Amino acid sequence: MASSSATGADHLAHERSKAKFDVEAMKIVWAGSPHEFRVSDRMAHLVASDPSFRRENRAVLSRKELFTKALKKAAHSWKRIIELGLSDEEASWLWFYVDELTFAYIHWGMFVPAIKGSGTEEQLNKWLPLATTMRIIGTYAQTELGHGSNVQGIETTATFDPTTDEFIIHSPTLTSSKWWSGGLGKIATHAVVYARVITHDGQDHGVNGFIVQIRSLDDHLPLPGVTVGDIGTKFGSGAFNSVDNGVLRFDHVRIPRNQMLMRVAHVTREGKYVLSNVPRQLLYGTMVYVRKVIVVDSSIALSRAVCIAARYSSVRRQFGSQNREINGIAAETPVIEYKTQQSRLFSLLASAYAFRFIGEWLKSVYTDLTQKLEANDFSTLAEAHACTAGLKSLTTSSAVHGIEECRKLCGGHGYLNSSGLPELYAVFAPACTYEGDNTVLLLQVARFLMKTISQLPHSDQTHKLSGTIAYMALMDHYLIKYCCSVEKAEDWLKADVILKVFEARAIRMCVACAQNLAKFADPSEGFSELSPDLVEAAIAHCQLIVVSKFIEKLQQKIEGNGVKQQLETLCYLYALHLIHKYSGDFISTGSLNPKQASLANDQLRALYAEVRPNVIALVDAFNYTDHFLGSILGCYDGNVYPKLYDEAWKDPLNDSVVTDGYPEYIKPLLNQQLLNARL
Amino acid sequence: MASSSATGADHLAHERSKAKFDVEAMKIVWAGSPHEFRVSDRMAHLVASDPSFRRENRAVLSRKELFTKALKKAAHSWKRIIELGLSDEEASWLWFYVDELTFAYIHWGMFVPAIKGSGTEEQLNKWLPLATTMRIIGTYAQTELGHGSNVQGIETTATFDPTTDEFIIHSPTLTSSKWWSGGLGKIATHAVVYARVITHDGQDHGVNGFIVQIRSLDDHLPLPGVTVGDIGTKFGSGAFNSVDNGVLRFDHVRIPRNQMLMRVAHVTREGKYVLSNVPRQLLYGTMVYVRKVIVVDSSIALSRAVCIAARYSSVRRQFGSQNREINGIAAETPVIEYKTQQSRLFSLLASAYAFRFIGEWLKSVYTDLTQKLEANDFSTLAEAHACTAGLKSLTTSSAVHGIEECRKLCGGHGYLNSSGLPELYAVFAPACTYEGDNTVLLLQVARFLMKTISQLPHSDQTHKLSGTIAYMALMDHYLIKYCCSVEKAEDWLKADVILKVFEARAIRMCVACAQNLAKFADPSEGFSELSPDLVEAAIAHCQLIVVSKFIEKLQQKIEGNGVKQQLETLCYLYALHLIHKYSGDFISTGSLNPKQASLANDQLRALYAEVRPNVIALVDAFNYTDHFLGSILGCYDGNVYPKLYDEAWKDPLNDSVVTDGYPEYIKPLLNQQLLNARL
Repeated sequence: MASSSATGADHLAHERSKAKFDVEAMKIVWAGSPHEFRVSDRMAHLVASDPSFRRENRAVLSRKELFTKALKKAAHSWKRIIELGLSDEEASWLWFYVDELTFAYIHWGMFVPAIKGSGTEEQLNKWLPLATTMRIIGTYAQTELGHGSNVQGIETTATFDPTTDEFIIHSPTLTSSKWWSGGLGKIATHAVVYARVITHDGQDHGVNGFIVQIRSLDDHLPLPGVTVGDIGTKFGSGAFNSVDNGVLRFDHVRIPRNQMLMRVAHVTREGKYVLSNVPRQLLYGTMVYVRKVIVVDSSIALSRAVCIAARYSSVRRQFGSQNREINGIAAETPVIEYKTQQSRLFSLLASAYAFRFIGEWLKSVYTDLTQKLEANDFSTLAEAHACTAGLKSLTTSSAVHGIEECRKLCGGHGYLNSSGLPELYAVFAPACTYEGDNTVLLLQVARFLMKTISQLPHSDQTHKLSGTIAYMALMDHYLIKYCCSVEKAEDWLKADVILKVFEARAIRMCVACAQNLAKFADPSEGFSELSPDLVEAAIAHCQLIVVSKFIEKLQQKIEGNGVKQQLETLCYLYALHLIHKYSGDFISTGSLNPKQASLANDQLRALYAEVRPNVIALVDAFNYTDHFLGSILGCYDGNVYPKLYDEAWKDPLNDSVVTDGYPEYIKPLLNQQLLNARL
Repeated sequence: MASSSATGADHLAHERSKAKFDVEAMKIVWAGSPHEFRVSDRMAHLVASDPSFRRENRAVLSRKELFTKALKKAAHSWKRIIELGLSDEEASWLWFYVDELTFAYIHWGMFVPAIKGSGTEEQLNKWLPLATTMRIIGTYAQTELGHGSNVQGIETTATFDPTTDEFIIHSPTLTSSKWWSGGLGKIATHAVVYARVITHDGQDHGVNGFIVQIRSLDDHLPLPGVTVGDIGTKFGSGAFNSVDNGVLRFDHVRIPRNQMLMRVAHVTREGKYVLSNVPRQLLYGTMVYVRKVIVVDSSIALSRAVCIAARYSSVRRQFGSQNREINGIAAETPVIEYKTQQSRLFSLLASAYAFRFIGEWLKSVYTDLTQKLEANDFSTLAEAHACTAGLKSLTTSSAVHGIEECRKLCGGHGYLNSSGLPELYAVFAPACTYEGDNTVLLLQVARFLMKTISQLPHSDQTHKLSGTIAYMALMDHYLIKYCCSVEKAEDWLKADVILKVFEARAIRMCVACAQNLAKFADPSEGFSELSPDLVEAAIAHCQLIVVSKFIEKLQQKIEGNGVKQQLETLCYLYALHLIHKYSGDFISTGSLNPKQASLANDQLRALYAEVRPNVIALVDAFNYTDHFLGSILGCYDGNVYPKLYDEAWKDPLNDSVVTDGYPEYIKPLLNQQLLNARL
């Protein structure tokens, strides 16, 4: 009857003893470098050991309590950063591990980068010292009640008044109300507000950013003409409810002309709109930067969930097995032994690693792009933009789905807030929507791919196919000659075989779309009509990028006993699980045949068996503290059930033995006296 | 720019004017019958018009406030049921539309059915009058901290003591603590507790239910030996946090022998365990019943989300179009015009209808099964059990995923609690886990399918292939002769073509699994190793059932102008979206070829265009009141933006202009005085 005397701690210790590689070396691979490992590890423990950063049971709090407690943590974080004289790098790790969403998240993540990206040298000199010492707190006010994805549809106006040398910021309609900006509702003193530049002659010059003060620095009251407040609660308990996402309306609010962010355009004293010699494309650099950050976030969010699910799956036992006994009693099987559990969990583990490496690679893409843009070289911008847009979409969609998979893999207990998984999901779910709706982004990728293909017949263009679209130069080969060489399951353990089959599928799907598009007289009608297919082609292209960069990672020097071998296993597992999941794409394009798909599936099963003994070490390599994980199911020592039991009693409902509401509602009900009761 | 003077109300009115069928007639089809429509419609309006049932902004409340307010609504519901003398049918609709999860949900949904299913005539006569008048409040205590899916692993013991004629209910370990039971934590007076029956001789007779009193009916205090409390908060704000899911431990609690639920077995006065002449299989009837209810819930949950997303997609405009103008200004396009939106939304709309009809059909399966079981005919039990298990899994997984899709289809605003979608998700998400984990259930289906196939060669068995597995009698045909006949896109609008291709795919996947299983010397090892493939085969079988029952529905008489045609469109859309999504299955089994898959995709696009003008009327046909929908984005009149704006200001954070916490945390931060501040 199932219950053995072995504890969760015994189970996890046993799992750790089975690992076939150097976990400490893997920690450094995951962190990116020995330096990054040391800094992040130090900050993780600094946060975990500070009682002021202890996690509240946020779900039991009212909105106001939740919000005020988060403010306290933000203030304490900044206090510690000053006290300890932390570097920017250390400070950003500290905010990261405190893991409490507040105004600070938007101030550092959006307001400061927006000024850096769109301000002139003079503006940077004025505003950055204020912002980076938090003497002002800023937010980013782009989205409006009626306009999210379509930035060009923004309605807020900034009309220049040459008589006073000011812009008049105004919200002409209800739908022009700024909406969603984090930290805006109750905290921010300033905002970068996006508005249409209207000159004195009534001409509309499109959208530009403006630094607008929202609240008084003396008493924190909203300035005249400013209506500002919180937009109400959001998905989940805790999660983004500690952030005051806000609504903001302007009634002819005047700001000095020099608060227009003037890097790419400015309005002269006389009211003339002038483009600067800084090309507008430079602004795309910020967009690439933000999306790169989100890709990194995806790997973190997913890896947290995978860590929780892997540990709990090793602790949890369910159903008996004829082959296992403990003290002569048929022992229940750890759920991680079930192949259905492995097929879901291990592919997510592999995805977490894949996304980690793609995020790392995007850092180099961004560095490279920035250098090129500053040298007025825009040759790689379109490709870098499409690539980050697509990867943002792919990784966030997969991570959001994966977190929920991990919750389900934990059975009923995953539904408890104390598992950490519900809040993780609620926090990361909006990543599919913010900074570009994932479907809209994939359509941008598709547009870029179709454009690339349309230029392919001109052979003078093929040399321009660099970076992630270089493979398209082999279009003819893939359309005519290519044939997948796999004959037995082990053939699927060859990097070039995998790469080619992903390339073949992506090219063939793209070309099929292009051919179907050509049937339409009106290209834009064709693009609209075929957009679901185009999205699928874009996904195929993005998956190829992730697979190819994982393979490139394996070709680098990797330290540590057995580390490289583990990464190879994860890489093949990632690729083969995609081949299985998208077998319709692969087979219908003839990139492989049903027999080869079936062999891929056989090899996938073999890879599960290879991951199995290493799974706990592979999640230990994330180096997450129990504080950061915030999950009883995922606790390092595996002592799950006693902790769940103890945690239960802390709920406020357990404060009294007889519940609040009993005398008014339950007693009269039980005593059949409801008809006379005043409810 | 962009913003026209037309309101959301104008947009929806325009959409409604385009519908090409009789919406009132469709409402009756959706409800099931004119009678069900009338009763449910009356109760919906009764609830919507009663201020005591108004929806709170639950997300801003603390756990205790949330819980107490829910108790009040439950008491008010019962009071109204008594006052108005509502029938059982009416009462259950009232609870449904009040839509507030409380102890009442478990009392009526689990406790009462458990007694009905497992009690003797005498026990029913004693306990049902108490339960159905709510003089006692009950819960269902099966799951333990350490045992969810594996009921046979339950540790709680019920040891018979012949000296006092009592059972001693005891929790021998921490992991044997009862866990999750709704209403148990703070409210229930009684529980059906599942425990191992141990007779005086120490023999263990397996698990049985017992009626155990938990709390005093005088003062509501837990009875001696009973430790009981709430297990803490769960996913989402609001959602199941208004329910006191509980933990329960017994320290040798004595109950009279006749509180063992004795329909299938009892213990005599002398302490002898005796099986009654009522076969144990009868208990499966209750399981089939509960899962049927969950299938119906799936269609309701999904249809609510689809209704919200469809209405808001018709109101919301985003991005311009060259071809549309309003007053000479390029108008933005309603997002429902985008094919990417349609492909996701319309397939979910079709799924909601498909699940509605499969739920309706399961009612007849249950009625039929009950009659057979009572006549000691168990011939259809295995098939009915596999069928409901599989359909519970399929519909809950699809609905849970679909609700999130609908949230994403609403863009950023779907993330606001005022959209109604976050709570809808959090409430329905556990349906994938409770009453049988979806993966475990699919493996049960697969086991049944493999058993069926293993018996097929014996021709004397084929006559037993009734109901949902009748098609397996055609195995030879499908393995050898079958060839999909589709030559052009319109061929996909033939019911028998669709049915055959689903049958071919299901049979071929099952047979492939069976052949692979045969390669293993140890069948249970094979089943374990191949379990991911078996799950996929089970899904194929379940999808076939849904498609075939939808087609059967179309063959019934359907009243109303254009109603049948709409249902046909939805049926084909449902089937073709599955063919597209699972094209890997269909093509790799040779059930269709890539060209035919591509034609299916073409036809799918054509169906989107047919659904487009009818989509609002198709969601109006659900007949949901604004109260029940609980969504600003989905409000009937489409007046979304003013309502979102007004709702925002109601958040408690907006109670004061300068936020709580400003003097302590924000002012010193802005004034660079944090180092001296006491936080």
